[in-house]
Amino acid sequence: MARGKAQIGVYGLGTMGSALALNMAEKGFAVAVTNRETDWIGDFVDEAGPLAAQLHPHESLQDFVAGLKTPRVMLFMIPSGEPMDAMIEEVAPLLDEGDTIIDGGNADFHDTRRRAQALAEKGLHFVGMGVSGGEQGARHGPSMMVGGSAHSWEQLRDVLRAIAARYEDDPCVDHLGPDGAGHFVKTVHNGIEYADMQVIAEIYGLLHYGCVWSPAQIGALFSSWNEGPLKSYLVEITGELLAYTDPATGHPVVDVILDAAGQKGTGRWTVVGAVRMGQAATMIEAAVGARAWSSEKDTRIKAQDLLGGERGLLSLDEDILKEAFMAARVLCYAQGFRVLEAASQEYEWQLDHARIAEVWRAGCIIRSVLLDDIAAAFREDLPHGQLFLSPRFAEILKRTVPALRKVVAEAVVGGHAIPALSAALQWYDSMRQGYGTANIIQAQRDFFGYHGFARLGQEGKFHGPWWD
Amino acid sequence: MARGKAQIGVYGLGTMGSALALNMAEKGFAVAVTNRETDWIGDFVDEAGPLAAQLHPHESLQDFVAGLKTPRVMLFMIPSGEPMDAMIEEVAPLLDEGDTIIDGGNADFHDTRRRAQALAEKGLHFVGMGVSGGEQGARHGPSMMVGGSAHSWEQLRDVLRAIAARYEDDPCVDHLGPDGAGHFVKTVHNGIEYADMQVIAEIYGLLHYGCVWSPAQIGALFSSWNEGPLKSYLVEITGELLAYTDPATGHPVVDVILDAAGQKGTGRWTVVGAVRMGQAATMIEAAVGARAWSSEKDTRIKAQDLLGGERGLLSLDEDILKEAFMAARVLCYAQGFRVLEAASQEYEWQLDHARIAEVWRAGCIIRSVLLDDIAAAFREDLPHGQLFLSPRFAEILKRTVPALRKVVAEAVVGGHAIPALSAALQWYDSMRQGYGTANIIQAQRDFFGYHGFARLGQEGKFHGPWWD
Repeated sequence: MARGKAQIGVYGLGTMGSALALNMAEKGFAVAVTNRETDWIGDFVDEAGPLAAQLHPHESLQDFVAGLKTPRVMLFMIPSGEPMDAMIEEVAPLLDEGDTIIDGGNADFHDTRRRAQALAEKGLHFVGMGVSGGEQGARHGPSMMVGGSAHSWEQLRDVLRAIAARYEDDPCVDHLGPDGAGHFVKTVHNGIEYADMQVIAEIYGLLHYGCVWSPAQIGALFSSWNEGPLKSYLVEITGELLAYTDPATGHPVVDVILDAAGQKGTGRWTVVGAVRMGQAATMIEAAVGARAWSSEKDTRIKAQDLLGGERGLLSLDEDILKEAFMAARVLCYAQGFRVLEAASQEYEWQLDHARIAEVWRAGCIIRSVLLDDIAAAFREDLPHGQLFLSPRFAEILKRTVPALRKVVAEAVVGGHAIPALSAALQWYDSMRQGYGTANIIQAQRDFFGYHGFARLGQEGKFHGPWWD
Repeated sequence: MARGKAQIGVYGLGTMGSALALNMAEKGFAVAVTNRETDWIGDFVDEAGPLAAQLHPHESLQDFVAGLKTPRVMLFMIPSGEPMDAMIEEVAPLLDEGDTIIDGGNADFHDTRRRAQALAEKGLHFVGMGVSGGEQGARHGPSMMVGGSAHSWEQLRDVLRAIAARYEDDPCVDHLGPDGAGHFVKTVHNGIEYADMQVIAEIYGLLHYGCVWSPAQIGALFSSWNEGPLKSYLVEITGELLAYTDPATGHPVVDVILDAAGQKGTGRWTVVGAVRMGQAATMIEAAVGARAWSSEKDTRIKAQDLLGGERGLLSLDEDILKEAFMAARVLCYAQGFRVLEAASQEYEWQLDHARIAEVWRAGCIIRSVLLDDIAAAFREDLPHGQLFLSPRFAEILKRTVPALRKVVAEAVVGGHAIPALSAALQWYDSMRQGYGTANIIQAQRDFFGYHGFARLGQEGKFHGPWWD
């Protein structure tokens, strides 16, 4: 190779892989590239324009590996299930001790842990890296969540910092922990994304069906919210997309879209991960459930026929909805970080929540101005490690929850479906009651199953007098 | 053995195993019994009184196996994780083709499927059997959910029908499907149990904290409800247990019980199973979440300090609460049966939902008069296979949901935590809206990730004009 070896390799030139390779090339790195279907490779390099000089195309895996500086670093952007296992099988024999394989897709972190362990036995390193920001992010600055060894981070750091999104001057990438940590943080990121999107959809529904606002009016409201404390990518794009008209019909675009939402699995993984660890991220559960139910279009139409689909008019103004949204968003992040903390303890990852919030401040789908405050809150002293109890967020919640309460109550009376807003409030009301109603459940469990219960203020396990 | 071989064996003489063995003995079957700690065996037989004649004690696994008629049937009542795998390893070499091993514990149905498959390769049969009813049920008539081969059911049927609870003359046991079917049905049974218990606890909370009723008054109300359409074991025992006074303090027993609920895993399994299959059983999720949060006692006390724990007075009367409970209970069963149907399709179990409802009518923790109507509804024509759309239940929901709506709205305004009641209503309102708000989510997904969406009334996948 006349032009020397490449600093990093990218295998898989789909949307995300291509964008990341071009981003690296633009930052001055020599990037080896290849793809299973080799006929894509030439087109990709041809379309790279002046960046082509930084791209080293290879037609075989052997050449791709041989074209990399050692110890090697290879980013694989391929489907994360069986194809990734097959790829590892194929590439591992070509590698040397100290080389690093990166999985940049959305993987189940259990797979990542398994792969990292298996490769470690061969002296190879496996990095599970969450990449958020879609194609535009990948091309011009994604947020990246890296899990793996310190050795791999050492190898990767310069490239990733160069291509990452920046919040002020801080690159939105970091080494968050070993093995599955990066992929799990990305999974929870996506769970929060699901919940925030659901909250936005619910607020849209209240305004549209309950207050008879047009999509364009609602879009303008979201755009105005994007100038204040709710500023975030999802609010921004909702403001934009609601303004579009469908060229074919002249209707607002959102009015011609089937109300059946897809999902690819990361929301479900967050729910499953949380529940398995004894946690409950009920806003994410609500969002995952809402998507599942939305796909049952025929059942819903039949149900409307049989049960009636009325939605009543609401007397909510935009300020109340804004405050309710703020409360729900804070509670959503708070639930997400609880899941992260549970995983951190379960897998001994020692996650730095402040740093995770910082990595999410730019480049990713859930970026919002709130994350800067969240990072600050985690750097302060948090009562019981709970975000919602930090002085600054407790303050916000005390101010905004009354609005959330009013919105939920009105929606309930009017028959509007608001599973995520409702879940937010239920969690808040459950957690702020020093004495709840689980005493009844404990009494029942002891009555029918002799499970025993703890008494207030006493050590030990007791049974009720029904056993005497 | 002078007295011949036993018809069935019971290994594991803990609470449930002992009770089942005595139940079998009482029905006239010769039962081989043994236990890992062999010193329990003699005491058990001694305490069996006249039933001892039917019990064949053995001190070793070899003797236990040798003492059974062939093809053998052995019920193992031991912990269902690794101990069951270890036991299979130990016992399988002693068995002959056609013998059946039964796991009568609460097992994860994935384990049951794996074990059934592994043993089938050796010509052995593995039955995963859910047993509900606690110690009393096991002794005098449990509800049993059997998964396994037709051959095993043939072997087991007479014994199980003899010992089962009876609803009118029908024994509450049946062969529900192959491999994991019985254990999965039991898992969902427990999930429904969690949700029904949570609903009861929430209604208690509304009456106690919102309407200032004493536990004894609330107990009397539950007891009166147990005379009508809410008649069920859980309502019955709640009525009873609320009447008890703590001998040590003179307070109502429930007032001295710590409000931190335990859980053993089956509720979580239901949630995880449902979510993995693309379903969402949000009332069960709410109940699992509520138990998890209840265990965070210290955080809740701190949260009450910081955020305030006020619960307002409510203007709810007992009739409204009764109707709301009915609506929630119907929706809870409806969600549970949706999860069963999803599993039936995923694993090709061809579950007979009517029969499952019948098996639950007596002996088990969730037994209620409603189950007879549910069985009838499943034998009629169900729109889209949905219980909540059956004529009889749609009728009940139209009558009772307004009460649920009023209860949820008042509780929300008053700050009472009602996650399960709230989840019930949110599901109902989501499902009865022929056009929901997932169009917004689809627009967002296309905007940031080029995921595409379906248009109303058109085939194919489309992108928004934001991509033009």
